Amino acid sequence: MELSSRLTNITGGGSDGWAVFYRARRMIDAGLTVTELTIGEHDIRTHDSILAAMNLSAMGGHTGYAEVPGTADLRDLVAARVAKRTGVPTTADNILITPGGQAGLFAAHLAACNPGDPALFIDPYYATYPGTIRAVGAEPVPVQTRPENGFQPGKAALDAAAAGAASLLINTPNNPTGAVYSRDTLTGVAEICHAHDLWLISDEVYDTQVWEGTHISPRSLPGMVERTLLVGSMSKSHAMTGSRIGWVCAPEPVITHLINLATHTTYGVPGFVQDAAAFALQQGSAFEEAVGAPFARRRALTLAALKGQNIVQPVPVQGAMYAMLDIRATGLSGEAFANGLLDAEHIAVMPGESFGKAAAGHVRVAMTIDDDAYVAALNRLVAFAASQVSQ
Amino acid sequence: MELSSRLTNITGGGSDGWAVFYRARRMIDAGLTVTELTIGEHDIRTHDSILAAMNLSAMGGHTGYAEVPGTADLRDLVAARVAKRTGVPTTADNILITPGGQAGLFAAHLAACNPGDPALFIDPYYATYPGTIRAVGAEPVPVQTRPENGFQPGKAALDAAAAGAASLLINTPNNPTGAVYSRDTLTGVAEICHAHDLWLISDEVYDTQVWEGTHISPRSLPGMVERTLLVGSMSKSHAMTGSRIGWVCAPEPVITHLINLATHTTYGVPGFVQDAAAFALQQGSAFEEAVGAPFARRRALTLAALKGQNIVQPVPVQGAMYAMLDIRATGLSGEAFANGLLDAEHIAVMPGESFGKAAAGHVRVAMTIDDDAYVAALNRLVAFAASQVSQ
Repeated sequence: MELSSRLTNITGGGSDGWAVFYRARRMIDAGLTVTELTIGEHDIRTHDSILAAMNLSAMGGHTGYAEVPGTADLRDLVAARVAKRTGVPTTADNILITPGGQAGLFAAHLAACNPGDPALFIDPYYATYPGTIRAVGAEPVPVQTRPENGFQPGKAALDAAAAGAASLLINTPNNPTGAVYSRDTLTGVAEICHAHDLWLISDEVYDTQVWEGTHISPRSLPGMVERTLLVGSMSKSHAMTGSRIGWVCAPEPVITHLINLATHTTYGVPGFVQDAAAFALQQGSAFEEAVGAPFARRRALTLAALKGQNIVQPVPVQGAMYAMLDIRATGLSGEAFANGLLDAEHIAVMPGESFGKAAAGHVRVAMTIDDDAYVAALNRLVAFAASQVSQ
Repeated sequence: MELSSRLTNITGGGSDGWAVFYRARRMIDAGLTVTELTIGEHDIRTHDSILAAMNLSAMGGHTGYAEVPGTADLRDLVAARVAKRTGVPTTADNILITPGGQAGLFAAHLAACNPGDPALFIDPYYATYPGTIRAVGAEPVPVQTRPENGFQPGKAALDAAAAGAASLLINTPNNPTGAVYSRDTLTGVAEICHAHDLWLISDEVYDTQVWEGTHISPRSLPGMVERTLLVGSMSKSHAMTGSRIGWVCAPEPVITHLINLATHTTYGVPGFVQDAAAFALQQGSAFEEAVGAPFARRRALTLAALKGQNIVQPVPVQGAMYAMLDIRATGLSGEAFANGLLDAEHIAVMPGESFGKAAAGHVRVAMTIDDDAYVAALNRLVAFAASQVSQ
């Protein structure tokens, strides 16, 4: 009677890179004031109008089992949204509603990978990626990117890693780097998927948060609709992180099987949460722009705060709610820098090493506190970095 | 680029046994009046007070990411509930909150089984059991029970199937049979688990619906706490089916790993749903008894309606919200009977064959419509059965 190796291996046995985060939380618990720039959570809560729609649905009686694939209304709305954003005809039959984007990532990998299959992902990466791949029994294979290339994945590196792989997971706009993948990058990704017959799992949960360039979904590239499993979510676009609602968009035969999987893993998503999401989507793009606006503002404040010095260099923040800062000029690792900053200034940021090898010597700053406090914290971060050089 | 065999194999390639259910739904869509006695859903919706608690939580700002293991409050309340019902000391560290009981069943099997491991379950069975086992890549192995034994699993049948298995899944009170496992039955189950070193996955979602005898959790039997993964839910006890909230109760090291799994499969459960569940649990047992009372009443009505004839025989309905009826005296299969009843009387019931081999020649009647309509439907069912014999 032992636990399955798939379960006990999810974390891969390594550090999860969250030591700084938890140390900051302990300092707060001990009564210290700490400025937290760590996690990807809006500083606003879900809008009252969305919550009122949820209450109306629940009080109206939508409290029994909802259809496992998702309600007809929400599937239609998500399909219309994906069609508009990708230019590819999309119907409700292409959509499975999931309890959050993470559930979509898990389902997509379970669909694409047999146990033992290599599954590619891009380094630096969102914290759950390798564990999601391990949880379906597949073998996580990171593909390194370089800060010098704006963390865009290169075709040669993908090609070198792809032999025998079942899937490639990408994320644009990217967490943690803020990169928005260019058409060149995505064309290279598509070529590799065709050459090595890979499923492409495309995490597009930040698709409404683009500050430079344009979001391109790989689903829209020639020949890619049949091999792309697109994962979306209401979390970032509508500040509905806690509602746990997202989707997978895929070819209809894939969705048919994913509905079977959903029947056996979650048995659907609360109907009142789906009705709230449907209401939110019906508010249109102005609502989404309002949710994203603080990050656009703080991105500009970030670039302004870093002007006039060259110790802390911004990686171009093209999208999402994070700024990745290159602090290699201090001579410190990201981890040493983050720990030092926490001790000296009581500011918590994520070491780049938390997100893989490619972001070593960087720290990720979540732009998730109010503008004045954010700028003050950035100024202290820059001063701290300068003090490390002059020591 | 093929879909994983684990995904495409979830349904096992066979009929899912829901043909009668879907045919009834099509008749309704076509404008016919059909009495549905098919699915396990209360004829009440979630209580207003629970929904008001949810709204209060959401409007109060509990809309961001909740802690992945579950909120401290809810974990404490569930631990106290399990401790009270099993007599076994239980703390929050033994509890993972899941988005519904089905997610708990999936997580428990993923914990217990490596790919290819045989995983036992009892026939007749709830529809998702074999697919849940297949979804984690394990091999479903049914263990037959017999109506003559009240569908209680026997030690000899378990022993004969258990060699090399990783887990045994049981469900008491039982869906679909209404059996409540006796202490003798559970002692036999425990002996087999010890003899073959099995994890016991104990689905106790109907534990508040016991009409005869006493619910005994196998977690309370000597030496079983360390090998029992108990799955619970708010669905049946509090008429919260659509809220998708349940739990796994297990030894702390198992929960630690299951939290890692939850991070990578669901990333937690909405905080406002957890707060609603916490409110519901705080209402105490009187509330749960009120939710269960209609089924207790209709169970008595079932037994009364079947008196004075011997063609339709009730299997002793000891618990849950279903009556399993033995219609073998008609000479029909459960499927032929259910189809005939739907055609002749526009009453939809589930063929016993939907739930495995052991319930052949039976139909399952969900006691989920109002008392008068329920009795009228049962009387017509009995008359239909009699007409089949006299033909």
